[in-house]
Amino acid sequence: MARILIIGGGGMVGQKLAHLLAAEPFDDQDEVTLFDLGFPEGGAPAAERVVGNVTDRAAFEALAATRPDIIYYLVAIVSGEAETDFDLGWTVNLHAFQSFLDVFRKEVEASNGSYSPKVVFTSSIAVFGAPFPPKIDDTFFHAPQTSYGAQKAMSELILTDYIRKGFFDGVSIRLPTICVRPGKPNQAASSFFSGIIREPLNGVEAILPVADDVRHWHASPRSAARFLRHAATLDQPVYENRPALNMPGVSCTVAEQIEALRQIAGDDVVKLIHREPDPAIIAIVKNWARDFAPDRALALGFTAEQDFREIIQVYIDEDLNP
Amino acid sequence: MARILIIGGGGMVGQKLAHLLAAEPFDDQDEVTLFDLGFPEGGAPAAERVVGNVTDRAAFEALAATRPDIIYYLVAIVSGEAETDFDLGWTVNLHAFQSFLDVFRKEVEASNGSYSPKVVFTSSIAVFGAPFPPKIDDTFFHAPQTSYGAQKAMSELILTDYIRKGFFDGVSIRLPTICVRPGKPNQAASSFFSGIIREPLNGVEAILPVADDVRHWHASPRSAARFLRHAATLDQPVYENRPALNMPGVSCTVAEQIEALRQIAGDDVVKLIHREPDPAIIAIVKNWARDFAPDRALALGFTAEQDFREIIQVYIDEDLNP
Repeated sequence: MARILIIGGGGMVGQKLAHLLAAEPFDDQDEVTLFDLGFPEGGAPAAERVVGNVTDRAAFEALAATRPDIIYYLVAIVSGEAETDFDLGWTVNLHAFQSFLDVFRKEVEASNGSYSPKVVFTSSIAVFGAPFPPKIDDTFFHAPQTSYGAQKAMSELILTDYIRKGFFDGVSIRLPTICVRPGKPNQAASSFFSGIIREPLNGVEAILPVADDVRHWHASPRSAARFLRHAATLDQPVYENRPALNMPGVSCTVAEQIEALRQIAGDDVVKLIHREPDPAIIAIVKNWARDFAPDRALALGFTAEQDFREIIQVYIDEDLNP
Repeated sequence: MARILIIGGGGMVGQKLAHLLAAEPFDDQDEVTLFDLGFPEGGAPAAERVVGNVTDRAAFEALAATRPDIIYYLVAIVSGEAETDFDLGWTVNLHAFQSFLDVFRKEVEASNGSYSPKVVFTSSIAVFGAPFPPKIDDTFFHAPQTSYGAQKAMSELILTDYIRKGFFDGVSIRLPTICVRPGKPNQAASSFFSGIIREPLNGVEAILPVADDVRHWHASPRSAARFLRHAATLDQPVYENRPALNMPGVSCTVAEQIEALRQIAGDDVVKLIHREPDPAIIAIVKNWARDFAPDRALALGFTAEQDFREIIQVYIDEDLNP
């Protein structure tokens, strides 16, 4: 039996992961606990839902006492909000994660070798900053141009050091921009990448705040959940002391995204996209990664969609007409 | 007049810097304040010496209230000690630095635009970890293999974000291994690189704990002080959003170091070096950087020694026979 804790289990990716783990458990006796500020009505199946805040150390202590085997850490203040609320970004994205590591390390130390969890942390391609090579390879350096990216890069470094010291097994998974996100827009600067597909498919107008030639790196929510499930099946030696991985994805321009939408849904749907340039979004997005050569992740068996049409189809199948 | 604060001003590099700034001030009315746990007797000239601990937030608040124009942040628990005392390493090397940034940022915010200091932080080539390319270039990624390296890499990332947000000007200076350090051995895993030169030149036996073919990257204490002085003369735009720089240095093997010592001081001096392999030191050093192409730093006017003989000569001139 695997005991699985999803910190951030009420969020979009956490829910996708919980659904996936219910459909494809590691073991037929898996117990999944979700921890978050709140949970969607209905929502993914779970053995337990725990309401709490990652800034509450006592909440982590209670979770650590249950000694989960696999811990997913998905909570974050998103990029746009971490820019506008500087202190909140650092508090949640770095300090809470440090507190999490410290609390679970103390549980590991107290166990005298009987407890050693695997920690799968969702990092982001926001750890990279322009200027970029044509494709970012597995040894390109961190030069984040947002607080969110800096916080993710720092979290990777501290987790890697805790892994190196033997407290945990684990890995940081650098997600592409997840698209098409179901539900409402969020405060991520990348939110429009989902919005220009999701809103028109639902008959609603959408705003495109950047130029059509903006190129970016995407994977579906289903791929995100699959990355996270697959990560928990790998053990430390495969990472060769570098347990932080760029995930596979689809590199495409906004124009290519819109053309894929046209092919799937037609001109009338595409006409719901309105161009309203937003200097704040443009300034953030121009420093974002455009394309990757995620050789290490591919060699370790991580897979994503082949093109943006496939990404749209995942949204239609899983969220629009489930 | 420039008001200069050296946090870690009692340490070896801090003292070298204070001596250099006395000999080559930015301005003939410079005021230099040194902050440290303690200071060597005599020591470098300073307008003021403040005794305190970087883990004491109130000490930072008192320093911030004086609104220094240029702040050097040199304090660190060294690599070997940060491995053996895990909590102390994180407390001093990351948490204290975060506290420093937070306190000075609040002073900047309270000043309504009248105060904006320049922060020069000493980072280290320990932010890099093996395997390496033949020469590490300016876009090779952080993969530290020590807690010290992780803490330095994280400190760079947070400083860079505070600079990006406009709270400070500044830069992280990734020092080569400083050699030949005067005085006594310290707990840095790199301490022997100085010891095998310094001790024999003083007629004392020295232990070499690694193989003769170990290659590493060095600069003298004088170069370190010159890097730091030069860094304070540069303004943010030159860094093009990447204010963390690999410094120039000398790449050489231990065998080449010993040969340089033989050329300068003769066979009898070299015979004082005894080989006693130390598995703990070997394990750390094998993951250290060997050679660099520090193009950005060279283009910005940072310079170091040309060969290891010159590095030994700096020690003889400045410390052995000053």
